[in-house]
Amino acid sequence: MTLDPVLSRIDADLPQALDRLLELLRIPSISTDPAYKGDCQTAADWLVSDLQSIGVAAEKRQTPGHPMVVGHVEGDGPHILFYGHYDVQPVDPLNLWDRDPFDPAIEDENGKKVIRGRGSSDDKGQLMTFVEACRAWKEVHGTLPCKITFFFEGEEESGSPSLIPFMKDNAAELKSDIALICDTGLFGDSTPAIVTMLRGLLGEDFTITGPDRDLHSGMYGGIAMNPIRVLTRILADLHDETGAITLPGFYDDVPELPDEVRAQWQSLNFDHASFLGDVGLKAPAGEQDRTPLEMIWSRPTCDVNGIWGGYTGAGFKTVLPSQASAKVSFRLVGQQDPDKIRTAFRSYVESRLPEGFTIEYRADKGSPASQMSIDNPMFDKARLALSDEWPNAAAYVGCGGSIPIAGYFKDILGTDAMLIGFGKDDDQIHSPNEKYDLSSFHHGIRSWARILEALTR
Amino acid sequence: MTLDPVLSRIDADLPQALDRLLELLRIPSISTDPAYKGDCQTAADWLVSDLQSIGVAAEKRQTPGHPMVVGHVEGDGPHILFYGHYDVQPVDPLNLWDRDPFDPAIEDENGKKVIRGRGSSDDKGQLMTFVEACRAWKEVHGTLPCKITFFFEGEEESGSPSLIPFMKDNAAELKSDIALICDTGLFGDSTPAIVTMLRGLLGEDFTITGPDRDLHSGMYGGIAMNPIRVLTRILADLHDETGAITLPGFYDDVPELPDEVRAQWQSLNFDHASFLGDVGLKAPAGEQDRTPLEMIWSRPTCDVNGIWGGYTGAGFKTVLPSQASAKVSFRLVGQQDPDKIRTAFRSYVESRLPEGFTIEYRADKGSPASQMSIDNPMFDKARLALSDEWPNAAAYVGCGGSIPIAGYFKDILGTDAMLIGFGKDDDQIHSPNEKYDLSSFHHGIRSWARILEALTR
Repeated sequence: MTLDPVLSRIDADLPQALDRLLELLRIPSISTDPAYKGDCQTAADWLVSDLQSIGVAAEKRQTPGHPMVVGHVEGDGPHILFYGHYDVQPVDPLNLWDRDPFDPAIEDENGKKVIRGRGSSDDKGQLMTFVEACRAWKEVHGTLPCKITFFFEGEEESGSPSLIPFMKDNAAELKSDIALICDTGLFGDSTPAIVTMLRGLLGEDFTITGPDRDLHSGMYGGIAMNPIRVLTRILADLHDETGAITLPGFYDDVPELPDEVRAQWQSLNFDHASFLGDVGLKAPAGEQDRTPLEMIWSRPTCDVNGIWGGYTGAGFKTVLPSQASAKVSFRLVGQQDPDKIRTAFRSYVESRLPEGFTIEYRADKGSPASQMSIDNPMFDKARLALSDEWPNAAAYVGCGGSIPIAGYFKDILGTDAMLIGFGKDDDQIHSPNEKYDLSSFHHGIRSWARILEALTR
Repeated sequence: MTLDPVLSRIDADLPQALDRLLELLRIPSISTDPAYKGDCQTAADWLVSDLQSIGVAAEKRQTPGHPMVVGHVEGDGPHILFYGHYDVQPVDPLNLWDRDPFDPAIEDENGKKVIRGRGSSDDKGQLMTFVEACRAWKEVHGTLPCKITFFFEGEEESGSPSLIPFMKDNAAELKSDIALICDTGLFGDSTPAIVTMLRGLLGEDFTITGPDRDLHSGMYGGIAMNPIRVLTRILADLHDETGAITLPGFYDDVPELPDEVRAQWQSLNFDHASFLGDVGLKAPAGEQDRTPLEMIWSRPTCDVNGIWGGYTGAGFKTVLPSQASAKVSFRLVGQQDPDKIRTAFRSYVESRLPEGFTIEYRADKGSPASQMSIDNPMFDKARLALSDEWPNAAAYVGCGGSIPIAGYFKDILGTDAMLIGFGKDDDQIHSPNEKYDLSSFHHGIRSWARILEALTR
């Protein structure tokens, strides 16, 4: 009888829970852009006072970058840590938003209610599902069910530069029996999922320079090598005609999928046609001999996230530019080593620079892929608790995104991480018009109450 | 004895001529950017009143774009038309300028004097060399030497959209015995040149769209085709490994250089190593089996003048963008037809778009290459007059740039055009820190006085 009153309380308190989330969404905590530094502090302050309002000893902890928020409540049973991030992605292109990204609202969309605004899904909405579950528990039982540590960062969307040092400096304080991470999604519309496989990430941001000034293509065109021509050749040749990545040794540490995992994934009946069709695409673009779920969950990738050079303004300018730049990122799997891939990428690029060309890197840090240890019995307890809340039984799935912290908990603290989230493929995270379904928020809160009960039963 | 007093007057009046040029250079008449529309009107007004001050019946003639300036003086002998343009290129990247591009000044550079500022060489400084020659002639002789028409446009740097309609509507008024165009340069430091061969220009400005929104590369990376990957492949494959352009039929209408012209060009002893070395480049990038002068004067080219897509701001964003864009231009030679090349380019691009991708063009108009008829005796008169002013004899040369009006005079008015200018390779036209040598300005004015005397003798 510990659970039902908590679930009822959650249902009754939903309007107030939404008001609290909208307050947090109004803070433009874009971590990658220095212009929003103050807003990241404001978001951290908001979380500290909200945690304190439910009896958590919470405080803002400064770092060389944006602050961490850490809070503790004592209790018996297992020590559970919950991680989320309060920073969000940039909002450009702003003209594609139907409303101010930081003036969130509940909207009707195809007959269902959605919470619209930057961060509504990634990750403020998801983060608050756990906080609201704890609030309801506290209000019903007067205490939380066990010893819980809250750990929120503000640099997840910008490579988490302060995270590893902070975890190392505070290892004793952050070590727990399980780390819950809410930054993932459902599988499809109604199948709860626990992510057991995460891709790593390596980013390279660089500029190549040819002529030492912009040139007139009338005077120099034909004889002077154009840096954009050099850059497009380098980037185009990163993939071969089969969609495979051409860097020497790139696939050396990429394991084949175990047959049982492949079988389980096949049983999910992933509809890649509608997955792509929903965003206006027709055919899969990855390695031709791989299934769509392998492409997004267990195969490494290379994408150009940004490219610029020459004249990009109104009208036409026949310039032969001095420089061309790109931001390239790799999704890593298995045992791929970010440093080894970075070295391979740089020697590939430099081997293709014409004599006299130079290159400057603005490196982004890399993180390897990670694999959860589902032999930990807490995984099955959580899986069954999720299955009680949702129409379908919960599944163990992979995730194409990079949530490096999952690996850090294991490597730095020796703590297993369990990734559970309630986002949907159409949440448009990192895109204009990001949203979070009201049902994701509501049933997400209820799911955490069930999981807390299951882990402390 | 008609010439010497004019030359002396030019020498004496040089400081005042410089003051007049600096006044014109202070007007930011950037034609490609709508923000400077009013400044283009101001520049036209300035020229009208300056021409009127030397007795020319000049007026501003509105067009759908920026205005033309047309002025006439009556007289005996041949009817000479002089063309120049008062518009200038954009100034970005502004941070690479050592001074405000529109706060011009006379500076010392390696022991010589230069006029620094946007338009100082291209084309305001060159345009004023002819006006100042006429001013001196008028002041010495009370009249100009013959019937002269002044014809200045304000859209040369943005494709001259109004030029052809205006020339057709005013053909009778603009028809003359010879059209003098001052928008070219010396060969090297001290060899005056008459351009007899000009490359044409075709521009394409386009955007390709894949997914209908920006995607998260973690969720879609590997399965969703990235428009930047598509664009870089399309652009990279425009050149083969020998530097040749791969568009089907691209070279069909490209003539081989006549042996005598090749011989004359070889005799110029072009130093391509220093031509490239001066801008920080080591090796020629064009077709490997062509001489450097062929590459810039008589061979067609393809250059990407601008490229953009995805996230190009500070920090890193793992976005898989919906769109990628580029501005591509072709320099055309011989009988290459801009429309035929445009069609070939578009079918090449579209044949390489993945299923479901779309493309939008913002076309820039094209112009074919042109060839001057040097059998017109005025060419030799001008060549000898130039040879009297400069240390070296004047040469007939090619020009890699596009000055479409040269062809228009022939096609629309039946008038031969003669291209004579005094710019230098290191004038950095279209680039930051554009300059015009004081000696180019001074001897340019004197050169026009000599040519006027020779053509009317």
